[in-house]
Amino acid sequence: MLLLSRSLNNLYKSSSILQSRKISTSIDVTKLSTTRTSTPKPQTPKANLVFGATTSDHMLEIDWDEKNGWHAPVISPYHPLSLDPACNVFHYGIEAFEGTKCYKDANGNLRLFRPELNMKRLAHSMVTLSLPPLDQGGFLACIRKLVEMDKNWVPDGEGFSLYLRPTVIGTQPTLGVTKSKNCKLFTIACPVGPYYPEGFKPVKLLAESQFVRAFHGGTGDSKLGGNYAPTIRVQAAAAQQGYSQVLWLYGAKKLVTEVGTMNFFCFWTNKKGEKELITAPLDGTILPGVTRQSMLDLARRWGEFKVTEAEFSIHEVIDAVKDGRVIECFGGGTAAVVSPIRQISFEGKTFDIPLHPSNPNAGAGVLTKRYWDTLADIQYGRNDHGFPSWSQII
Amino acid sequence: MLLLSRSLNNLYKSSSILQSRKISTSIDVTKLSTTRTSTPKPQTPKANLVFGATTSDHMLEIDWDEKNGWHAPVISPYHPLSLDPACNVFHYGIEAFEGTKCYKDANGNLRLFRPELNMKRLAHSMVTLSLPPLDQGGFLACIRKLVEMDKNWVPDGEGFSLYLRPTVIGTQPTLGVTKSKNCKLFTIACPVGPYYPEGFKPVKLLAESQFVRAFHGGTGDSKLGGNYAPTIRVQAAAAQQGYSQVLWLYGAKKLVTEVGTMNFFCFWTNKKGEKELITAPLDGTILPGVTRQSMLDLARRWGEFKVTEAEFSIHEVIDAVKDGRVIECFGGGTAAVVSPIRQISFEGKTFDIPLHPSNPNAGAGVLTKRYWDTLADIQYGRNDHGFPSWSQII
Repeated sequence: MLLLSRSLNNLYKSSSILQSRKISTSIDVTKLSTTRTSTPKPQTPKANLVFGATTSDHMLEIDWDEKNGWHAPVISPYHPLSLDPACNVFHYGIEAFEGTKCYKDANGNLRLFRPELNMKRLAHSMVTLSLPPLDQGGFLACIRKLVEMDKNWVPDGEGFSLYLRPTVIGTQPTLGVTKSKNCKLFTIACPVGPYYPEGFKPVKLLAESQFVRAFHGGTGDSKLGGNYAPTIRVQAAAAQQGYSQVLWLYGAKKLVTEVGTMNFFCFWTNKKGEKELITAPLDGTILPGVTRQSMLDLARRWGEFKVTEAEFSIHEVIDAVKDGRVIECFGGGTAAVVSPIRQISFEGKTFDIPLHPSNPNAGAGVLTKRYWDTLADIQYGRNDHGFPSWSQII
Repeated sequence: MLLLSRSLNNLYKSSSILQSRKISTSIDVTKLSTTRTSTPKPQTPKANLVFGATTSDHMLEIDWDEKNGWHAPVISPYHPLSLDPACNVFHYGIEAFEGTKCYKDANGNLRLFRPELNMKRLAHSMVTLSLPPLDQGGFLACIRKLVEMDKNWVPDGEGFSLYLRPTVIGTQPTLGVTKSKNCKLFTIACPVGPYYPEGFKPVKLLAESQFVRAFHGGTGDSKLGGNYAPTIRVQAAAAQQGYSQVLWLYGAKKLVTEVGTMNFFCFWTNKKGEKELITAPLDGTILPGVTRQSMLDLARRWGEFKVTEAEFSIHEVIDAVKDGRVIECFGGGTAAVVSPIRQISFEGKTFDIPLHPSNPNAGAGVLTKRYWDTLADIQYGRNDHGFPSWSQII
């Protein structure tokens, strides 16, 4: 595989040769053109917001082609994309996306949460797709401009935000399965409300090993469209049985991986008797979640229990449940932020996961609730909890 | 997993309940509307045809939505698709495609080759994507009409054909990762020439085990866009090292799977001393190729050697090369039809694959050439070789 790595390096070198031909390798926010809508859309009342169903007034587009590199960015009224039906996004899944939120703080400031981690992940997804190197700072600067244009679309209040969907698609209009000579970055925005309007709603997970989300040598660590389509039928079947999400397992050991829309955390007393927060390691099969990273960073700063990124199996979780060693389980992801877990089903048997040690009416465990409160403090700019760089005023 | 199968069945039952509400579950060719272009495109000279780069004058579209089912089919002048940027085809890889060819015979008849196998595979891909059941006969009837509209786009001559690209994409314009409430079937057509204008050009394969194309519990047996995007960078790296294609391996045993654009066949004397044609079995990781099936069907009819669909590893192929037991290796797929293989590289070592036992200038082995001639006979309507149903006059 040395040969392969060397060739991948050569591909990058040949793209740097192209730079000498005045190809634009940067996304230049100073060249941004903006057209404001003359017919603003009516806004959905906050109580009626459904995730991803309402889009804002404007969108950002940045085209790239092999000869010219990145074109000047454009913000214009939200509109359909007009694409040749031979474009490779329709045939070969050349697409990747990100999800991040813009929050309004009590002073009316708009804030992004660690958006550079989304840009870094998108750049990685674009490498996986053989798309050009992403100018992460340039793209983020343009996204900030989009938020400014649509600032009246950022709802206020705890749990409300403007969900941003940076996306890249292949736009070469030919059917060869080759490196795309054209692509389009775009960003749309959706006002969203809290996942749990009446407080936490702990979820039930179906642990699944027949169908597999990602695999070693695959693309589980990139946020590609193709990772999501196959999960829908498994998710739908789980929902029919009353489970809100699928907990994806991997391999003969039935390793716990992630939930697809969020990463999975178990807070337990391990076999050595230590309190430990454990989540699957970034071994290529796991999406490197921004919320996941923030939860790990917070726990390591708190220094109150062991924090572990390592392989663990569903059998180990079940054994710990049976031994009374599981304290809480929860998911972490941008959409729901923190999701308490109250039940896991595996091979026809259902296991109750503890929520709170003393309050039977609590919707979430102590650590789960602490994460929720801490992240909300940071995201809405009330308290940076020692991480002043995470919440960034636009 | 019984529970899961039961739920999937329930999903289908609930879709049959919908039928009672007069949802159109069939694609009705009698409702087809056609608009002929008023500005026919100039045609690319046959010698300049590049695979998938030239499209014909018309395209077929059939929309589906959850409330109404399949809409009336439409053939109209080739045009861009206009799609909301929130459509799930751009975000979650809800897309699948087929490839089949229309051949012109010596009498000027247009012929399709086993197109019902493409429809069957597309129907399977749509199940994988949680899309509605496909009316295979109805869709094929509409595709035949498209070919009739574009009959002047079918080039004549051995190796020439009109490549048809039936495609389905998710068109629901919301960001939820759920069963799509809207989709669009479409078909575009590209005149194509022979892969090897000056006769066979035997290819070199790079056997790859670091990156994996498909996996058990995944979608390797469906023709989804998401299966292709991740292969491009591996293919590009292989091309930089002088290999035309990647031979994808799987698992610790390094099983031989397929080439991505074609299935892989080894014709050898096995360890028992029997002449045997072997290819990977349809275990969920392999695309069920129409050419693959036809090669197996022909060999079984010939009855001259053992025909096996079974797991075999790259180590077994290499051992057979070293022992002088490999007679020929070749690939089979719609685009190139038959590709002789002259070299396989694995873990830095290169192995020469025999082409022809007596003619050092032959571009292909005896069996490879026989497949090429036989399939061309059938596809161009010269001789059905005992399979009168395979080549179908439009």
